[in-house]
Amino acid sequence: MKRLTGTNKEIAELLYQEQLELSKENRDVESTVQAIIEDVKKRGDEALRDYSAKFDKVDLTDFEVGQDLIDQAFKEIDPEVYQALVNAKENIESYHKHQLETGFEDQPSEGVIRGQLIRPINRVGVYVPGGTAAYPSSVLMNVIPAKIAGVKEIIMITPPQEHFVPAILVAAKLAGVDSIYQVGGAQGVAALAFGTETIPKVDKITGPGNIFVATAKKQVYGIVGIDMIAGPSEIGVIADSSANPTYVAADLLSQAEHDTLARAILVTDSEALADAVESEIERQLKLLPREAIARPSVENNGRIIIANDTDAMFELMNLVAPEHLEIAMDNAYDYLEKVENAGSVFLGHFTSEPIGDYYAGANHVLPTTATSRFSSALGVHDFVKRIQYTQYDKAAVNKAQHDITTLAYAEGLQAHAKAIEVRNDNN
Amino acid sequence: MKRLTGTNKEIAELLYQEQLELSKENRDVESTVQAIIEDVKKRGDEALRDYSAKFDKVDLTDFEVGQDLIDQAFKEIDPEVYQALVNAKENIESYHKHQLETGFEDQPSEGVIRGQLIRPINRVGVYVPGGTAAYPSSVLMNVIPAKIAGVKEIIMITPPQEHFVPAILVAAKLAGVDSIYQVGGAQGVAALAFGTETIPKVDKITGPGNIFVATAKKQVYGIVGIDMIAGPSEIGVIADSSANPTYVAADLLSQAEHDTLARAILVTDSEALADAVESEIERQLKLLPREAIARPSVENNGRIIIANDTDAMFELMNLVAPEHLEIAMDNAYDYLEKVENAGSVFLGHFTSEPIGDYYAGANHVLPTTATSRFSSALGVHDFVKRIQYTQYDKAAVNKAQHDITTLAYAEGLQAHAKAIEVRNDNN
Repeated sequence: MKRLTGTNKEIAELLYQEQLELSKENRDVESTVQAIIEDVKKRGDEALRDYSAKFDKVDLTDFEVGQDLIDQAFKEIDPEVYQALVNAKENIESYHKHQLETGFEDQPSEGVIRGQLIRPINRVGVYVPGGTAAYPSSVLMNVIPAKIAGVKEIIMITPPQEHFVPAILVAAKLAGVDSIYQVGGAQGVAALAFGTETIPKVDKITGPGNIFVATAKKQVYGIVGIDMIAGPSEIGVIADSSANPTYVAADLLSQAEHDTLARAILVTDSEALADAVESEIERQLKLLPREAIARPSVENNGRIIIANDTDAMFELMNLVAPEHLEIAMDNAYDYLEKVENAGSVFLGHFTSEPIGDYYAGANHVLPTTATSRFSSALGVHDFVKRIQYTQYDKAAVNKAQHDITTLAYAEGLQAHAKAIEVRNDNN
Repeated sequence: MKRLTGTNKEIAELLYQEQLELSKENRDVESTVQAIIEDVKKRGDEALRDYSAKFDKVDLTDFEVGQDLIDQAFKEIDPEVYQALVNAKENIESYHKHQLETGFEDQPSEGVIRGQLIRPINRVGVYVPGGTAAYPSSVLMNVIPAKIAGVKEIIMITPPQEHFVPAILVAAKLAGVDSIYQVGGAQGVAALAFGTETIPKVDKITGPGNIFVATAKKQVYGIVGIDMIAGPSEIGVIADSSANPTYVAADLLSQAEHDTLARAILVTDSEALADAVESEIERQLKLLPREAIARPSVENNGRIIIANDTDAMFELMNLVAPEHLEIAMDNAYDYLEKVENAGSVFLGHFTSEPIGDYYAGANHVLPTTATSRFSSALGVHDFVKRIQYTQYDKAAVNKAQHDITTLAYAEGLQAHAKAIEVRNDNN
């Protein structure tokens, strides 16, 4: 872990620049992805079959993952994994149900009704990566909020596999996915955005993926909604002398093992803790099966900052705006009020960040690269629309006429004024 | 107005393709805008001064619009415009206050606390176009929701003018803008995204603008949040035989006068009404000062569709997903339940759409080009972040350990499991 010094503002700016660097897109894939999207738009299923043959080395006649494969997955899944998924699902559901919004209506004056409807998005597509990055927890985190929002149809796509990870198919069914198609990459995203003969087009696409998937999502944004373009995972830990270095090191490493580009940042007002965490990281790293990923991550991207006091720790962390934030302090809950920017906060010495990745119920799809300054965890709100409505009766529009037409004429929009005036018998 | 026939799905698809065509970006400006952004990022104020000299033909020493100019605007403003702005502000405020969210917290089991904080975005920048597109109503619509959300600092930028429209500066102050800088175009957007010596960088940028502004917003998205990339304005009117053709025509024209690319779509189950509306449009067009804009708009982009019955009208309109939707029917309110996709709905024969543009209180920054399928009007929710939090005590994490580590091992993420296990004395 590299130690940084400077003012909070300088350190935050430096970390921000480093994070941008880590999440820099690979521009080279832009044109490849664009060509794939255009092709799928034009040739539909035929293009999908060609790309599946080319990239996934499979000859597909049918894209849909049939009930037989799903039944098989339920038979094959480890019963303990099944039970853990069921329990996680329950927690995720009970957390996200709090996010359900209701509309409102008021009658601010005689003859006037105003309101807001909450309507679910009609059809959503969820991308689920294949291979080693096939995470059933991500299936739950993407699908459950959509289901709670009331989305009518949820379609999952995932790259074709010789043998699907049973937990992926089981998680999809537990969460409420309506149909699953085995098509991945940019071609899969294009199919969801524009539809093909067999895959219906959706209104919004969520879910993680590699650079081709991320670039495709960005390119179809506007045609459909997307969740976000996520960068490498980050964790920020605020720890004082009360923190346990073994716990802090373990949590930093749990992010580091995701990706060599993942980043772990420790902010502490205790030199002694910083030293102890560093030794612990070294000790634990050697025991990790994924050391080859975690070591370059902490060595290249890990950062330690010594702050003067508690306020300085929070001020800096708010500037960093981390995806995950741990507060490893006694009475951590009392410091929640100091948090301004973070995707998800983990309070106290025992709330290890992986609790949130899998289980506690809050979402693990979170804003990275300081975007928690202006955006939030995936949630039920991402799967609804707020539709405004207004009703004025004749007397009400006549009464408001002078104000409205005054503004319309001031803006030089006469037809706007006329539309109000024609409703008045005295005009 | 061109009449379209076909199945609802065919018509909706055709309208969608036409709308996409209308909102097609001008790719040519991409590289120009990118160069401007890079330059402002590098040279700050100096670059801003150069672009102001080049594009706005002014030599600026100071970018901030001083209190003297604001005082002058308050002296110069037409008292009736002032009063209309004050009244509009009150309505916009009372509507948007309903959108304020509160967080939540629960304790789903012993030793577990979960919750969600609502925090305002720290600093927001609002772009306000200059010249003839300087709309004080847009200032209110962008700033008031941010203010209600609790945004700490709101910065407005607008192109330099020899003489600022007084209503723009007055609306800014009424709504609660903290500071105003006279800098426009892509260079203004870049200044807000990256900051310069005098203009502080913001967390989110909202507000309309020309193709340079829109392209710049798109390019800085990710560095900062943005509201949306809006296409040309649209109105969809559902009208049956109870509708007044004079009113319907006036409302269609109020959209058409915005822009030759604006689009007005009438869906009706009455041939007679369709004919009457067409005659009325022709009659009213000739009286319009902005006929030169409105005529090509209705002639090229105006569409009439005759539907079989009420259900067919709504089904089609939900597929179209218009920015503005008028329901020109008796008992329009009762049909609200049929609305699935629309930015803002105007109910009944007297609720002319311009009521919403200026006055009633609902926002006029709305999703265009069928994006109301997955997105919503600008509102208070666009200026807050939802921050999740979780706290597990030692017993709780030990109890959840088996489930969490089962999932972590199943996903091949051992450091995730270890971070849970180190919290257990029995491991």
